[in-house]
Amino acid sequence: MEFFQVVTVAQARKVLASHWPRLKRKSVVCELTQALGLELAEDIVAQENVPGFTRSTVDGFAVRSCDTFGASEGTPVPLRMIGEVPMGSRAEMVLNRGEAVAVSTGGMLPLGADAVVMLEHTETLPGGWLNVLKPVAPKENVMAEGEDVKKGETVLKAGCRLRPQDLGVLAALGHWKVKVWEPWRVGILATGNEIVPVEAQPGPGQVRDINSYTLWGLVKSCGAEAKLYGIVPDDLSYLSERLAQALEESQVVLLSGGSSVGTRDLTLRLLSHWGEEGLLFHGVSIRPGKPTLAALIQDRMVFGLPGHPVSAMVSFYLFVSPLLKYGRYQDPEEEPAVEATLARRLSSDAGREDYVRVRLARGEDGGLVAVPLPGKSGLISTMVQADGFIRIPLEKAGLEAGSRVKVRLFI
Amino acid sequence: MEFFQVVTVAQARKVLASHWPRLKRKSVVCELTQALGLELAEDIVAQENVPGFTRSTVDGFAVRSCDTFGASEGTPVPLRMIGEVPMGSRAEMVLNRGEAVAVSTGGMLPLGADAVVMLEHTETLPGGWLNVLKPVAPKENVMAEGEDVKKGETVLKAGCRLRPQDLGVLAALGHWKVKVWEPWRVGILATGNEIVPVEAQPGPGQVRDINSYTLWGLVKSCGAEAKLYGIVPDDLSYLSERLAQALEESQVVLLSGGSSVGTRDLTLRLLSHWGEEGLLFHGVSIRPGKPTLAALIQDRMVFGLPGHPVSAMVSFYLFVSPLLKYGRYQDPEEEPAVEATLARRLSSDAGREDYVRVRLARGEDGGLVAVPLPGKSGLISTMVQADGFIRIPLEKAGLEAGSRVKVRLFI
Repeated sequence: MEFFQVVTVAQARKVLASHWPRLKRKSVVCELTQALGLELAEDIVAQENVPGFTRSTVDGFAVRSCDTFGASEGTPVPLRMIGEVPMGSRAEMVLNRGEAVAVSTGGMLPLGADAVVMLEHTETLPGGWLNVLKPVAPKENVMAEGEDVKKGETVLKAGCRLRPQDLGVLAALGHWKVKVWEPWRVGILATGNEIVPVEAQPGPGQVRDINSYTLWGLVKSCGAEAKLYGIVPDDLSYLSERLAQALEESQVVLLSGGSSVGTRDLTLRLLSHWGEEGLLFHGVSIRPGKPTLAALIQDRMVFGLPGHPVSAMVSFYLFVSPLLKYGRYQDPEEEPAVEATLARRLSSDAGREDYVRVRLARGEDGGLVAVPLPGKSGLISTMVQADGFIRIPLEKAGLEAGSRVKVRLFI
Repeated sequence: MEFFQVVTVAQARKVLASHWPRLKRKSVVCELTQALGLELAEDIVAQENVPGFTRSTVDGFAVRSCDTFGASEGTPVPLRMIGEVPMGSRAEMVLNRGEAVAVSTGGMLPLGADAVVMLEHTETLPGGWLNVLKPVAPKENVMAEGEDVKKGETVLKAGCRLRPQDLGVLAALGHWKVKVWEPWRVGILATGNEIVPVEAQPGPGQVRDINSYTLWGLVKSCGAEAKLYGIVPDDLSYLSERLAQALEESQVVLLSGGSSVGTRDLTLRLLSHWGEEGLLFHGVSIRPGKPTLAALIQDRMVFGLPGHPVSAMVSFYLFVSPLLKYGRYQDPEEEPAVEATLARRLSSDAGREDYVRVRLARGEDGGLVAVPLPGKSGLISTMVQADGFIRIPLEKAGLEAGSRVKVRLFI
């Protein structure tokens, strides 16, 4: 029989974050589209201006702005049309005083022009003339060369996870290939004599493997690669062998599945005696998720997640997900979250963080209401009904009905 | 020269939502892990109870709860240990009055037992006896057969997008294969004489294709398949041919890229004369994103997105993304969003919805602040700096500094 020497969430995160940089992976060069969601492995410094020339942002006429000063509907300024800039081509002409050139949105401004009068603020006259009905300021309706990105500017920093708009700026700068970090490889191993594969019909006392699939989904949602290593019964040599195999192919291994004291003891024995650093912590003051443990084995990290499906998910969200996604933790109070009104009172023990599943609903006033979904941490169905978690901090003994809470939505 | 007959966002969404059900796709049966993020094509009705037997939720001793009534540290109740339930096996024994059976978390309760006393609330006595130090109520520390999922219950509805926990409940019920809808196939086609491929060095008046890449990222982030059809110059027959090819292979086609009046006219001419329904709308009262158009061509939907990168993204978020993800639109006020305090005043014209890029920062009081990132809609760099949008509704002429705003975070 083992007793937990629990650490706080902050303590557990501190030790995990301090060891995380020891995990290594390679960078790879891939095509731009394949880099979506991956982490950039180098700073991107602009080698050119974007745009590379001064462009019109409207359909209209390129002019010298000083020519239009004082123009109005009553006293229009006549300008001579000397041509049109074709889209995608150099503006070959040079604009002199009293002249105008037709230009479309995105078209290049000719030399001499410093602004564009919108089509709507002009009227065409016979004989190649037009009237300007409204003055423009210098640079009005114009995107200057380098206004989007300046040559020499760092547009994206190494480590950022590439979003659609980041692909866009890379494309603007001509990066059709990009150097990214390989996704983390995460091995998932279920343990416990009572666990049977999803294809099997459970006998008396047996249940199907749930955690391998929830964890697969969570790992993939973090942008990492997941590999299932199946179910291992409570046998030290067999578990040891399978873990070695998973460690061979992964930087992170998640052990989960069995909830019994026998499985926990076995995992603990295995991890305590393997590797020079061994166990980082064993037991965290949270509910659910208390029997979480972590170990460092050379440059690999192993998490022993609780067997109860809800506990395993909470533990993953708290400890594994931030590292896989960002390589670090954020202050839980700093995470952007959706605010809602708590539908009913929740109690908690001081000295323990509670994570409560909630469903979002609409209150009578139209505002968001967080409805707690109580239930044992073994009930996966409560996670299916839930939209997210709320957190009751260590120092609080509960939350009153009607209080404002932050809901951390699921991935 | 064309003028916009603009519709409101609500009007545009109404017509799009009414035609969306005409788009067809096949269902496929895939392995559970491959179904993550896809939409379920059938209701899942439980064919069995989960768990299939009554289990302990703690490590301890299965008992008849009535035997423990009145137990305390001062007046412990002695019970006779008659055995132990092995994990993953049937509890073979039958429990009579005055007896207890050791059981681990997740273990099966023997016949006759109706509760479990936690290990911590017992003490072992010599000769196969133990003392119970605290009473348990009937069903205490027990998960009853079917408590998670009851046979006959609908656990997941057709159309839901499978999250990690949904894979978990499917695994619990033995669904190692699952019927899902194929992801939507979305073709992306850039237009405009000024657009050159990302690998090319733009000449004077030319810019690289940004929108193909931002749209690729957005489409993929919606769980759909994206295919790039390259860049088409402003030529009706060439554009027509490429669009036909994209329509052959996709249910949705996004046209984008050129911002010039020539490209817009061309797209409009093409879409107005193709298909019996043709154009659904042309121009929406939003900024940025006004020159958005949509057309129905038989059972395919074509969106003409604005050429400016920011406009194209706003338009995608407003019109395309909800359909790809959910097949319908949500009231923008109902969408869960992060709340923040607006850092400075924003003006807007009544009669138009404005979407303003913002960066999230921390205020002096530690609260979230939304800092507007003004800038022309052609500046992709402002999207890279931004964390999300805020919306200024149709009827408002602006938002005051210090007002509470909802920030819609990017995918």
